[in-house]
Amino acid sequence: MAQAAGGVGGEAAAAALRAVRSCLAAFPAEARELGLMESVPLIDNLPSPLEFYREWVCPNKPCIIRNALSHWPALKKWTLRYLRKVVGSKMVSVAVTPNGYADAVYQDRFVMPEERHMLFSNFLDIVEKKVTSPSVFYVQKQCSNLTEEFPELLGKKPDAVNFWLGESAAVTSLHKDHYENLYCVISGEKHFLLHPPSDRPFIPHKLYLPATYCISEDGSFQVVDEKAADEVPWIPLDPLNPDLEQYPEYAQARPLQCTVKAGEMLYLPSLWFHHVQQSHGCIAVNYWYDMEYDLKYSYYQLLDSLTKAVTMV
Amino acid sequence: MAQAAGGVGGEAAAAALRAVRSCLAAFPAEARELGLMESVPLIDNLPSPLEFYREWVCPNKPCIIRNALSHWPALKKWTLRYLRKVVGSKMVSVAVTPNGYADAVYQDRFVMPEERHMLFSNFLDIVEKKVTSPSVFYVQKQCSNLTEEFPELLGKKPDAVNFWLGESAAVTSLHKDHYENLYCVISGEKHFLLHPPSDRPFIPHKLYLPATYCISEDGSFQVVDEKAADEVPWIPLDPLNPDLEQYPEYAQARPLQCTVKAGEMLYLPSLWFHHVQQSHGCIAVNYWYDMEYDLKYSYYQLLDSLTKAVTMV
Repeated sequence: MAQAAGGVGGEAAAAALRAVRSCLAAFPAEARELGLMESVPLIDNLPSPLEFYREWVCPNKPCIIRNALSHWPALKKWTLRYLRKVVGSKMVSVAVTPNGYADAVYQDRFVMPEERHMLFSNFLDIVEKKVTSPSVFYVQKQCSNLTEEFPELLGKKPDAVNFWLGESAAVTSLHKDHYENLYCVISGEKHFLLHPPSDRPFIPHKLYLPATYCISEDGSFQVVDEKAADEVPWIPLDPLNPDLEQYPEYAQARPLQCTVKAGEMLYLPSLWFHHVQQSHGCIAVNYWYDMEYDLKYSYYQLLDSLTKAVTMV
Repeated sequence: MAQAAGGVGGEAAAAALRAVRSCLAAFPAEARELGLMESVPLIDNLPSPLEFYREWVCPNKPCIIRNALSHWPALKKWTLRYLRKVVGSKMVSVAVTPNGYADAVYQDRFVMPEERHMLFSNFLDIVEKKVTSPSVFYVQKQCSNLTEEFPELLGKKPDAVNFWLGESAAVTSLHKDHYENLYCVISGEKHFLLHPPSDRPFIPHKLYLPATYCISEDGSFQVVDEKAADEVPWIPLDPLNPDLEQYPEYAQARPLQCTVKAGEMLYLPSLWFHHVQQSHGCIAVNYWYDMEYDLKYSYYQLLDSLTKAVTMV
């Protein structure tokens, strides 16, 4: 930082900027070589809280725990038929989209789903294809009665417990959360595509006006802008079919892909980018724990700011 | 990173470089606000390994544990008189310098101490001022027989256990280690001046030719260059009396200072910069545990590279 206060000649500045860009471009590979595997490690049983913290949470590394849920009655009990019997008459809020993408970039907008209130049994009719619809339906429901269910792996209560049930066309676009995430599959399977936070320099972000899908009388969807809303930063890239002409730097990113099967739990660390697909009618429950806003978080914020600073040009 | 491959105009590059420098200059304060206290926290008793990992090691935060050593017989037993009786006839290697600074920048060299082999009792004569010398003496001795002494706070065996005994003039210059450090004071006290790794942008580093103090026949010291040795990166700044004209950016750094007294243990996290002074004849033992080369380490390396990149100009 010596001489940071003084002005700098154009050529010297360009050289320094090239050096900064080299550092940022080399960083994801360096981080990967030190810490990460080629694939998401599988472990057989729940580790102790100490082991879990030392091996996975503190180093911010994902893993799949195969027999994490073997004691859960839900593993055998929660069939669609059972859910219809027990909660069929409850109203639920369902995310409805024309294409399966809720919360994703579409036509230069950040588009959120239509939130449709319906009977759970009507939603199940669609999942079970007793009724056909051109739209794609996905249920996410907070269910805090499951809060007590989980071993205190993280030494604190979860901030939220979510129930997920949806069609195979329902996709979660690439994004990250400020949570430590324990993702438990009850039936079917989930397919995750993951990027560590250190891949940030290769993952494009842009600002988008927010909008919402609204269904018309004729059943077609319109994209309706939110009024007077702030722009939302989101990732325009589809990691399954990346537009490398527009985002050539993504060619250097290295996604990890994994499938989480019924009875298994994925530890998805905070700030990891994730894109999620699922088998039709997959049932899952996930636990969100507030992350620690510590040195790792500060470093990520720095990486984010620097990536933006060199992308300004 | 978009357009990272293309050339960039001088003015645009200068603007981007200014933005990068702003990020680096703002980072230390942001990291401090999220994670650190105004002073090193004192805790009363040894925490469990899980608590220690969650609260201190993983967030890379120092603390002083006040009653960590109360069960150590050494606390009462290790007087200078006792040490003379038990190990007085052993040969030890003593770091001898004209000024108390072993491993520090002097006259544009990185100067290491004369390593003098002497009877421990002769060294004690100097510490107890039975013999006078214009030089400053400091003993550091590995003592692996203490390896078993310590509770397994870190879940692994230490890489090294060191015994320290020296004069009040013996100072350890500002530097950092790739170790988690448990620093236990047996008698007297140690004074630490600490900087978190996030202060790196404000802490000057330079490359120095290595040299060694050699004592002449007349008792004066000469600085003798090491032959064909690589340059050593070191910190030229004295944090007790910083030259802010030469290193103005250090004015923005925020040292933490603390005193560790007999019976207390400092947890000094990996990669923290530290400068150490002591009371005359202070006896201490420290445990070095290899740090985890994880995401935090990669991020530090990035911070280090970026600081160098913008300082090139």
